[in-house]
Amino acid sequence: MVTTQMAAESATATFERLVLDSGAVLAPVEVAYETYGTLNAARDNAILVLHAFSGDAHAAGEGGWWSSMIGPGKAFDTDQYFVICSNVLGGCRGTTGPGSNNPETGCPWAMTFPSITIADMVRLQKELIDHLEIPRLLSVAGGSMGGMQALEWAVAYPDRCASAIPIACTARHSAQQIAFNEVGRQAIMADPDWCGGNYYGGKPPANGLAVARMVGHITYMSDQSMREKFGRKLRTPDQFEVESYLKYRGYKFVDRFDANSYIYITKAMDDFDLTQRGALPTLFEGSRTRFLIISFTSDWLYPSYQSLEIVSALRSRNADVAYCNLEARYGHDSFLVEVEDQTVLVRGFLSSTHKEETRHRGTHARA
Amino acid sequence: MVTTQMAAESATATFERLVLDSGAVLAPVEVAYETYGTLNAARDNAILVLHAFSGDAHAAGEGGWWSSMIGPGKAFDTDQYFVICSNVLGGCRGTTGPGSNNPETGCPWAMTFPSITIADMVRLQKELIDHLEIPRLLSVAGGSMGGMQALEWAVAYPDRCASAIPIACTARHSAQQIAFNEVGRQAIMADPDWCGGNYYGGKPPANGLAVARMVGHITYMSDQSMREKFGRKLRTPDQFEVESYLKYRGYKFVDRFDANSYIYITKAMDDFDLTQRGALPTLFEGSRTRFLIISFTSDWLYPSYQSLEIVSALRSRNADVAYCNLEARYGHDSFLVEVEDQTVLVRGFLSSTHKEETRHRGTHARA
Repeated sequence: MVTTQMAAESATATFERLVLDSGAVLAPVEVAYETYGTLNAARDNAILVLHAFSGDAHAAGEGGWWSSMIGPGKAFDTDQYFVICSNVLGGCRGTTGPGSNNPETGCPWAMTFPSITIADMVRLQKELIDHLEIPRLLSVAGGSMGGMQALEWAVAYPDRCASAIPIACTARHSAQQIAFNEVGRQAIMADPDWCGGNYYGGKPPANGLAVARMVGHITYMSDQSMREKFGRKLRTPDQFEVESYLKYRGYKFVDRFDANSYIYITKAMDDFDLTQRGALPTLFEGSRTRFLIISFTSDWLYPSYQSLEIVSALRSRNADVAYCNLEARYGHDSFLVEVEDQTVLVRGFLSSTHKEETRHRGTHARA
Repeated sequence: MVTTQMAAESATATFERLVLDSGAVLAPVEVAYETYGTLNAARDNAILVLHAFSGDAHAAGEGGWWSSMIGPGKAFDTDQYFVICSNVLGGCRGTTGPGSNNPETGCPWAMTFPSITIADMVRLQKELIDHLEIPRLLSVAGGSMGGMQALEWAVAYPDRCASAIPIACTARHSAQQIAFNEVGRQAIMADPDWCGGNYYGGKPPANGLAVARMVGHITYMSDQSMREKFGRKLRTPDQFEVESYLKYRGYKFVDRFDANSYIYITKAMDDFDLTQRGALPTLFEGSRTRFLIISFTSDWLYPSYQSLEIVSALRSRNADVAYCNLEARYGHDSFLVEVEDQTVLVRGFLSSTHKEETRHRGTHARA
């Protein structure tokens, strides 16, 4: 394959105010985002890509978290589509979050930051899409927490997204998913350097955050992939490879992630439960959004049955839904690394969605 | 069922010295143990029950960790059998461990305690069985780390155990199993109260140990059992039941367990790998020990394939092995709570083993 360069734009948009689910108001609120490819004249080729828990706006290009999937000729083909990715609300990579300054005090919000939800994240993304003057997204797509946001988009703004690609996700966090997140939060809060969240300008709770990340890492891999990657290999006579790897990854995470963001974002994930707004099928009633839902056989953190629950709800309302449980060995991480099958699925789905959208507009124009 | 009383004896045996795998010598070494039922005149009805990671010698009766399985008329029927359970080497419930005093210094060993192995634990148990003048155990039985000890017994002292019942265990710890243990250790060692292990007489690393235990708890349950037990139920408007439960169990654990024992014992589990001594089938060559191996369908921490690996090795040597993968919903904890099917299996297996042993001795006596 010939490597072609991809034009990427990095920017920050500031909005006057954002009203949250809690009733709290953030004023102003900033959102960091990147775009890849070119928005066409019809403004109908835009795809919003949604990052997982620890991701950021840098989705494609060198070091991008989904660079295997986004780029010229890739699944999200930037020669054809205009791809947008923003850092989520509550994040620590350019978008307003607990590490941002509270304009009323001039000091970091820390734990006084209002609680946020997946719906709040999506609300801010919708502001961004309005700001970019995109009437209707060709697709909203993401894995893990990104998949939850894609679902939220389809439920909250069905007319603004022609399609949704929720990957390796769930319509509601389970007790086990909450439990793993809670262990991470407890590890952070048990670290004396956390100081009730007021560590900005000082030493961050590195040990607690590293332990939290280690737990996370185990849940992202599969038993099989860990066995194949590490097995019982030793790093030193007293340390297994897997121990060394986890510790390295845990402490490396501290350099790029804020512990309070960890707490706020995992809480938003845990609180995510679409069924609180009604039985799942009723939420998709009359929706014209097309769905491609993907899960992975070895993903035990977001098991396939959770995707199937969404698929069943959509099918019960005759929604347009394609579902694939991909044979994969890398566990939850599969959405990031098992790109071959995903590429085939996503490419075909986007292409048919684009054709369908064009045909639909043509029909309406002729009418 | 009529409740009958069970005579229980609690004692501590002291041995002059124990040479460990590392070459280090513990002198003296104490082992806390309990016995239930009566040793018969032939001394052929003794069963050694082996506890899991956080267990102790108190296996049966009020508050015993396997009281559902041990007692009059139960799987390990104390009306018929003499059941022994001892706290493992490295433990903190009466047997010598890192919290014991180093006789040379008069101070707690802490992290100067020599590293221990599952084989060392079994070596100490063998001293105890010699001390109790039991020539041959009817069975060695346990789940999880208890199952590893049962396997170790069968490999190290095949002539001393007529049968072995390894439940929900493995012949070697996997990368994922090591990883979960390492997170627990890191959580403990990240706690400033750990003080390099020298916290005796002061404040123990409660937060670190509680976080470690929380991780453990999640791995002991299944996705299904957590969903059924907690679901998304709230304890308070801001706290899920599952969060409250984990925190409660985590901190409660601190009252009864020593953080350094956590480190030493999990390390022994991680280092456990029977295949280091030869291919698994060769280790059972010529063994006359009968095996009953049990795993549970929902146990994702010690998945069934690990038990099957042992079963295959035994079958390849025409060993006497019965295997059952029990349909169970409680994950790894199933060995403690799903007692009905286990009772049927264990009772029949012990009874036939006892008959077989009697027949065998009769044949030899007549010869």
